[in-house]
Amino acid sequence: MTGRTTQEHMEQGKDTRAAAQPGTRQAALIALDWGTTSLRAYLFDAAGEVLDTRVSTAGIMNLPVPAEEGGFDAAFDEACGVWLAQTPALPVLAAGMVGSAQGWLQAPYVETPAGEDALVGGIVKVRAACGVDVAVVPGVLEPGALPNVMRGEETQIFGALSAQPASDAADDSAAGTQAALIGLPGTHAKWAVVEDARIARFYTFMTGEVYAALSAHTILGRTMKRPAAPDTAAFLRGVSVAREHGSAGLLATAFSTRTLGLTEQLAPDEQPDYLSGLVIGHELAGLEAVLARRDVALAACAPQLIGADALCERYKLALAQFGCTGAHLVRHATERGLWRIAVRAGLVSAS
Amino acid sequence: MTGRTTQEHMEQGKDTRAAAQPGTRQAALIALDWGTTSLRAYLFDAAGEVLDTRVSTAGIMNLPVPAEEGGFDAAFDEACGVWLAQTPALPVLAAGMVGSAQGWLQAPYVETPAGEDALVGGIVKVRAACGVDVAVVPGVLEPGALPNVMRGEETQIFGALSAQPASDAADDSAAGTQAALIGLPGTHAKWAVVEDARIARFYTFMTGEVYAALSAHTILGRTMKRPAAPDTAAFLRGVSVAREHGSAGLLATAFSTRTLGLTEQLAPDEQPDYLSGLVIGHELAGLEAVLARRDVALAACAPQLIGADALCERYKLALAQFGCTGAHLVRHATERGLWRIAVRAGLVSAS
Repeated sequence: MTGRTTQEHMEQGKDTRAAAQPGTRQAALIALDWGTTSLRAYLFDAAGEVLDTRVSTAGIMNLPVPAEEGGFDAAFDEACGVWLAQTPALPVLAAGMVGSAQGWLQAPYVETPAGEDALVGGIVKVRAACGVDVAVVPGVLEPGALPNVMRGEETQIFGALSAQPASDAADDSAAGTQAALIGLPGTHAKWAVVEDARIARFYTFMTGEVYAALSAHTILGRTMKRPAAPDTAAFLRGVSVAREHGSAGLLATAFSTRTLGLTEQLAPDEQPDYLSGLVIGHELAGLEAVLARRDVALAACAPQLIGADALCERYKLALAQFGCTGAHLVRHATERGLWRIAVRAGLVSAS
Repeated sequence: MTGRTTQEHMEQGKDTRAAAQPGTRQAALIALDWGTTSLRAYLFDAAGEVLDTRVSTAGIMNLPVPAEEGGFDAAFDEACGVWLAQTPALPVLAAGMVGSAQGWLQAPYVETPAGEDALVGGIVKVRAACGVDVAVVPGVLEPGALPNVMRGEETQIFGALSAQPASDAADDSAAGTQAALIGLPGTHAKWAVVEDARIARFYTFMTGEVYAALSAHTILGRTMKRPAAPDTAAFLRGVSVAREHGSAGLLATAFSTRTLGLTEQLAPDEQPDYLSGLVIGHELAGLEAVLARRDVALAACAPQLIGADALCERYKLALAQFGCTGAHLVRHATERGLWRIAVRAGLVSAS
């Protein structure tokens, strides 16, 4: 049994870098985004261009064989064996849950404020069965009464910073010196404040996972019907209710999914997107509140969003309801971040 | 296959009414608290004393046979057949989800503000196969942008009001003329404001159900271990975090259950009660906020709590953290409320 691995063409979007064909340039780095449920492997050339990408379902909780039976080696060989066969001496960098206590080798968290040098200083190396050393990027911990942790997002954040207009992926000054707000929607959505090129603080919202649990494992799911197409109006209605009634809390507003249905004000196929709007709206209301404590107005921010396009577009719509109209999507943050850290760590030299 | 039905002795607690022995007094009323997952049947004498109680798992979603095959009749006969065999002409009153669209007969909601007369006016009758008419109490709807509904709790609320000191269950003035706050913790916790003996408005918090979903169906459950005994300190810690960080919202604070564990500040067997404190704390923070909108201070209220003793005691502790020290438990609210409505409906005459 092995995880499914597929080759995929990079979506270039508005990226100005030319699409590279595998084999036409010399490979210089393998970099892995290795999370809980998936493994994405990138092959870079010496200029930081992505030559090839392989995606597998072999996340650390979904290895082809158990970890104690060599599951990490099996997944790594499956994803990267072809590349290493062609270019045996390639350096390898990995970020994400692969560095957690349940990962291949634990890379202890570095604490906020965390810059790229701290991440590089926290890299640990695990030797694969095939003899290759895999450098593992540490996660970031924000200590305190309500600690926060991230693994993988730190790499995407520095990738997003390097994608700023008028910056260059290999330019040390790219992260800039002013504060930036970066959002990473998803199962456990993260919002990070970057100051002076360091992750100063961040917040985690269990938005995606709570939405899934509410939909599948509470009474709310019983009357829901999946719509044929995403229902933006129902989504925005949910955001609006969360924004106006935020202080009542999600425990209270969530029940309106049911009562609006009972009173025939919300059709079954509007309920999934309405609830999605509610939970994302509560996330943004919470974000607005924690930013306000430090005298930062969410409406005045121009957040960079990292994640699946459709989800990020929803966040843009939701943010606009909070008066925050400057949000924009950043693509290829993961690859850019991996490359950037590899350069800083001396695994490759910036061209 | 039938639902399990058991006789049970009433817990008299601090109730000053004498325990009555079945058979020593004349039965005058059967009253049912018929919810989603259970059916509780009470046999009253003409003075409103409970002569006997039978408890069954035959809630409306758990009938002994499907509804369309006579499931309601089967459950009713199983619970009350013995009593009706002894006293065939007994009037029968039922409250709870039995009056919902999925129930025996739908009793359309009455709208807030809802007093006892409105409930009595909304009673519908269904004739059981055995020939007995069952009077079904309607639920209450609060219309609006975020509608709220209850079924069963309205009966408990009037029961609690009748249990006020210096009041009498059959006294029309018992509900008083001043505002009262009544809390009903549970799967879908309700908080009702009663003004001039009418349910003026109420709020629903999905506290119990969200706690269960977070524990069983998110990452938070993975590191939890059930404690040998309830951990009040961990519970109060959770309440405190919710109170201090309420504006960040439950989506944010819930994740601290995991991160405090990762940073060894919260042991696995402290996590369940900590999370319980978090969700109940967010409920109370939300309640405090919605009350404040109408210039009511939660701390100045003396809420009556209806529900399982251990859960109500937890709410008392949590409320005290919000400065609300006047909360007290009300027992036998269900029986009292059923009796009171039966009297008002003329099913029995108050002695």
